[in-house]
Amino acid sequence: MRILVIGAGGAVGRAIVAELAQRHDVVEAGRTRGAHRLDVRDLDDVRRLFAEAGTLDAVVMATGSVHFGPLGEMTAEQFRSGLDDKLMGQVNVVLAGQHRLADGGSFTLTSGILAEQPIREGADASTVNAALEGFVRAAAIELPRGLRINAVSPTVLAESMATYGPYFRGFEPAPAARVALAYSRSVEGAQTGQVYKVW
Amino acid sequence: MRILVIGAGGAVGRAIVAELAQRHDVVEAGRTRGAHRLDVRDLDDVRRLFAEAGTLDAVVMATGSVHFGPLGEMTAEQFRSGLDDKLMGQVNVVLAGQHRLADGGSFTLTSGILAEQPIREGADASTVNAALEGFVRAAAIELPRGLRINAVSPTVLAESMATYGPYFRGFEPAPAARVALAYSRSVEGAQTGQVYKVW
Ligand SMILES: NC(=O)c1ccc[n+]([C@@H]2O[C@H](COP(=O)([O-])OP(=O)(O)OC[C@H]3O[C@@H](n4cnc5c(N)ncnc54)[C@H](OP(=O)(O)O)[C@@H]3O)[C@@H](O)[C@H]2O)c1
Ligand SMILES: NC(=O)c1ccc[n+]([C@@H]2O[C@H](COP(=O)([O-])OP(=O)(O)OC[C@H]3O[C@@H](n4cnc5c(N)ncnc54)[C@H](OP(=O)(O)O)[C@@H]3O)[C@@H](O)[C@H]2O)c1
Repeated sequence: MRILVIGAGGAVGRAIVAELAQRHDVVEAGRTRGAHRLDVRDLDDVRRLFAEAGTLDAVVMATGSVHFGPLGEMTAEQFRSGLDDKLMGQVNVVLAGQHRLADGGSFTLTSGILAEQPIREGADASTVNAALEGFVRAAAIELPRGLRINAVSPTVLAESMATYGPYFRGFEPAPAARVALAYSRSVEGAQTGQVYKVW
Repeated sequence: MRILVIGAGGAVGRAIVAELAQRHDVVEAGRTRGAHRLDVRDLDDVRRLFAEAGTLDAVVMATGSVHFGPLGEMTAEQFRSGLDDKLMGQVNVVLAGQHRLADGGSFTLTSGILAEQPIREGADASTVNAALEGFVRAAAIELPRGLRINAVSPTVLAESMATYGPYFRGFEPAPAARVALAYSRSVEGAQTGQVYKVW
């Protein structure tokens, strides 16, 4: 398969590439790294990426920032930043890519454990991750030509504990290589509308 | 209790008011109807409402439009309209209201069955409803002063079948009065972070 990984240079993305490149032709994209550069928040950028990238059998997304901060101080703008970036970035890729992916191709999005298991300062993340899972369930029943769509919901990565550890006390971290298996399962399996939880 | 119902003039809102007004002092708000007028998409409007409305023990939200249309033709702008209206409208009320509600007060938001049970043309609705449920789970663990927050997830109302029937073939509609009980349970009960499904 020819697989586009957006966010290929990130903590999750690098592990996805390591897993999939063993068996597939992986095309790497990111904001500042990778063969293709784009800002997924910008639908024109996304369209340009699909025009440049050629035939694709799968698109995997490992992008997406959200605002972390106390609910009591959160502004609407901070809250909206997660909607614009992690949510609309991935939705943009599906809206544009549904017309470009090869028949039977797949989208794999990234949500996260906070969709169901909240933490302090994580209201934006919980909202965005849950939104992505709702989107995946709905898009799955409308995509044409045998296209599939799933999400992977990772817990905190072992490799990210230095950064995110204080937010995730008591959560069991998962090695990135283990999280990457769920992306392989989505891309190389046959299900659609699923959320693969790695936790 | 003194309870603010935003969207009091709508199909869901009227039933909520009929249920709660039997035992409580209900303050009605809406865009074009009710004692208080506001656009919930506008945070300044929401702040003004709280400044005007006086002491409140509960806020119930029954507002929120989303875009219905085929995924294959959906634009990012159409998709975003549901985020701006149904999602950010309700989030704005919580962001502003958390500093105004009386100790031990509650927020009750409205999601909907499409969060879990998708229909054709409903990708925006599924996304927004799931997002609201993620928000409620997360906000519940951060709200101060014993404030609570829940969502009600109605199936299609019997009273709305004339409009929404073609989207919901085979779904069992619920009378608005039955849906209204879930709002009473949220406001008059003691739980937080819950999604009360009426389906
Ligand atoms: N790390 C964790 O523990 C963890 C746990 C659960 C879920 N997640 C989720 O997994 C996803 C990736 O997280 P991560 O930790 O791997 O992040 P990361 O290390 O910061 O990597 C993010 C990747 O996405 C790219 N990117 C960021 N914004 C972009 C934009 N607007 N347009 C295009 N590309 C963009 C970056 O590109 P450049 O590097 O080229 O700028 C980078 O490759 C996020 O959705 C995160 O919420 C992470
Ligand atoms: N009806 C159903 O079958 C059903 C089923 C499941 C979920 N829901 C959800 O329940 C909620 C209410 O639906 P509904 O059918 O009752 O809608 P509706 O009959 O159209 O009523 C909407 C109410 O919200 C107010 N409103 C709309 N936009 C507003 C804004 N931007 N700012 C302030 N107020 C605003 C309206 O005020 P004015 O009338 O004053 O303009 C009206 O009172 C929606 O979130 C909907 O998705 C409905």
